[in-house]
Amino acid sequence: MRVTSPDWIIVGAGFTGAVLAERLASQAGRRVLVVDRRDHIAGNAYDYRGPWDILVHRYGPHIFHTNSKKIWDYLSRFTEWRPYFHHVVAHIDGKYAPIPFNLNTIEDLFPRRMAEAMTQGLIDTYGYGAKVPILRMREEGAEQLRYLADYIYRKVFENYTFKQWSLKPEELDPSVSARVPIHVSRDDRYFQDIYQAMPVDGYSAMFARILAHENITVSTSTEFEAVRGLYPGAKVVFTGPIDEYFKFEHGALPYRSLRFRLFERPGPEAQPVGTVNYPNEFDFTRITEFKHLTGQRADGTILIEEYPEAYVPGRNEPYYPIPTGDTAAALVPYQAMAHQLKGKVWFAGRLGDYAYYNMDQACGRALALFEKQLAVT
Amino acid sequence: MRVTSPDWIIVGAGFTGAVLAERLASQAGRRVLVVDRRDHIAGNAYDYRGPWDILVHRYGPHIFHTNSKKIWDYLSRFTEWRPYFHHVVAHIDGKYAPIPFNLNTIEDLFPRRMAEAMTQGLIDTYGYGAKVPILRMREEGAEQLRYLADYIYRKVFENYTFKQWSLKPEELDPSVSARVPIHVSRDDRYFQDIYQAMPVDGYSAMFARILAHENITVSTSTEFEAVRGLYPGAKVVFTGPIDEYFKFEHGALPYRSLRFRLFERPGPEAQPVGTVNYPNEFDFTRITEFKHLTGQRADGTILIEEYPEAYVPGRNEPYYPIPTGDTAAALVPYQAMAHQLKGKVWFAGRLGDYAYYNMDQACGRALALFEKQLAVT
Repeated sequence: MRVTSPDWIIVGAGFTGAVLAERLASQAGRRVLVVDRRDHIAGNAYDYRGPWDILVHRYGPHIFHTNSKKIWDYLSRFTEWRPYFHHVVAHIDGKYAPIPFNLNTIEDLFPRRMAEAMTQGLIDTYGYGAKVPILRMREEGAEQLRYLADYIYRKVFENYTFKQWSLKPEELDPSVSARVPIHVSRDDRYFQDIYQAMPVDGYSAMFARILAHENITVSTSTEFEAVRGLYPGAKVVFTGPIDEYFKFEHGALPYRSLRFRLFERPGPEAQPVGTVNYPNEFDFTRITEFKHLTGQRADGTILIEEYPEAYVPGRNEPYYPIPTGDTAAALVPYQAMAHQLKGKVWFAGRLGDYAYYNMDQACGRALALFEKQLAVT
Repeated sequence: MRVTSPDWIIVGAGFTGAVLAERLASQAGRRVLVVDRRDHIAGNAYDYRGPWDILVHRYGPHIFHTNSKKIWDYLSRFTEWRPYFHHVVAHIDGKYAPIPFNLNTIEDLFPRRMAEAMTQGLIDTYGYGAKVPILRMREEGAEQLRYLADYIYRKVFENYTFKQWSLKPEELDPSVSARVPIHVSRDDRYFQDIYQAMPVDGYSAMFARILAHENITVSTSTEFEAVRGLYPGAKVVFTGPIDEYFKFEHGALPYRSLRFRLFERPGPEAQPVGTVNYPNEFDFTRITEFKHLTGQRADGTILIEEYPEAYVPGRNEPYYPIPTGDTAAALVPYQAMAHQLKGKVWFAGRLGDYAYYNMDQACGRALALFEKQLAVT
């Protein structure tokens, strides 16, 4: 595989890489070679048509949501959207109760009087519409609200956290646990962003359009090592794992991985909503049913279970940077090494920055990187 | 039927026998002959495809549930699972109210004010989430809670017990009656285990996979007597009735048996949940509708009624060891006889141990027996 001397090599065809390639090609007139070691574009957002023509997300459910009009408008040039508001229920005490925990959840789980008293207590203390971190409520609330906070902690947070990270809540960075809120409202949606939608033809189709520029060449199933020597003058954006780029010289950055189990069932929907969390049962954290996400109707249905597991480089995929203080510190020496390559190699994206980005954040990071640095390089 | 000199003869192809056969064959490299007098494998867990392709459990409903990750992981090598949380309602005063008795049951059965006062009394006395044996509540509770305990005793426990065992509650071992709790919560599930699921293709298919090892030969419709003389050197695991093995020399161990009546109905589900208990009416104890258990959708439905009856060896099946002090004592002489056969014959399983095991317990008993004794034999 050969390309007429690209100006840029972009490693990784996920959100960060694809958006940067598009910007460099269309706005700066650069020739760009995008390589990805996988056999497909779209990174972890990759989807394909499975049985019954149902769109399947190979790397787990991807639901697009953003508050940024800029990012929304940018991606809207490459796809039409189907408005979709994701709902999640958690299996708690035998009920499928809405998550994040809100007033409906309280009503579903507790006896009527108790639920009414809790609801009134929350409204009186925090105001209708507030989002209160349960760890805060656990410390400062009246007895009944402390009980509620404890209940949520035990039945929703603690076991799920242990499955997800194999860490006890107190071992996690406080920013993670602080984020688990109870929502003093009856809004059952999992996200509250202004824009919430799924690309009508799927993510892979959207990525194909993002990358469909005459200045862009895409080569999948291609390692960076196979092309870097061919174009010594090309600048590089590396969206793979920053520690791998530097051959793990300062040790491997700790990630959490996932194993997925896809399965099919005949018949209509198997779940009441898109995702069911199982904090307290089984080894998987959650099951997602794709038909809810895509709005498709079919005689069968496809679901995916997620089993968190330890990350082993070369054996499975690095999905989540592990959010503890230690791990943030582990990034520092790699950032210093990256600094030495300034002007030649840029690191970006979930794996390049070692930061958990949602899809819109990855897209936003790429747009900002282009505007502030690459456009003027 | 002939086998090249098996190292082991296993009598019974239920959970205990199948798991031991698999372990001996795959882990210890032994040749194993499994015989069962019935014309099928899977013991009482046997299922088959009935009308509308619905999976029918010939020997009554079998719902898998366990807290043991070890047992779950072991069986997961032989089947996929469908998460299933079993719900039972009892027909009480003309209502179908959830069992075990919990706060929802109170709400379904009593007028609102009365129900709220009882609920509040339970929460104040025992705390939300507690499980309180009704015999304890009957002795120590406030007047209203004593009334409730009496009500449950009369409407749920007493008559059901008499049908099930043909014994008055006071004739039963206290460990049985002490187990009947009221659950101060809204958790309606019949079980609270971490793993609760049904094998996707049914139990018989799972057993076929457990036994599908080149070192295992299975012979159904075969009495132990027909093969024991052929292989005098083989060690034996006997999972049949221990008293039958010793020709009832110390009398028959008392069991309770069941008669089943299967019936079909056109149309969708005939019951609100998987099992409906009838403590106070009819001669059957309960009716189970298989579609709820399997999650199948079909134009018809199949149900099964259970009629407890006396056990008569040779005429019906021994299902439940009768839980009284007398019966436990009756086992002692047989245990002594079994001890004489140490190193040659092992007794295990519900009938071999004369103990009421759930499916996961039978599986766990077999795994432990293999690890502690058979692996090193």
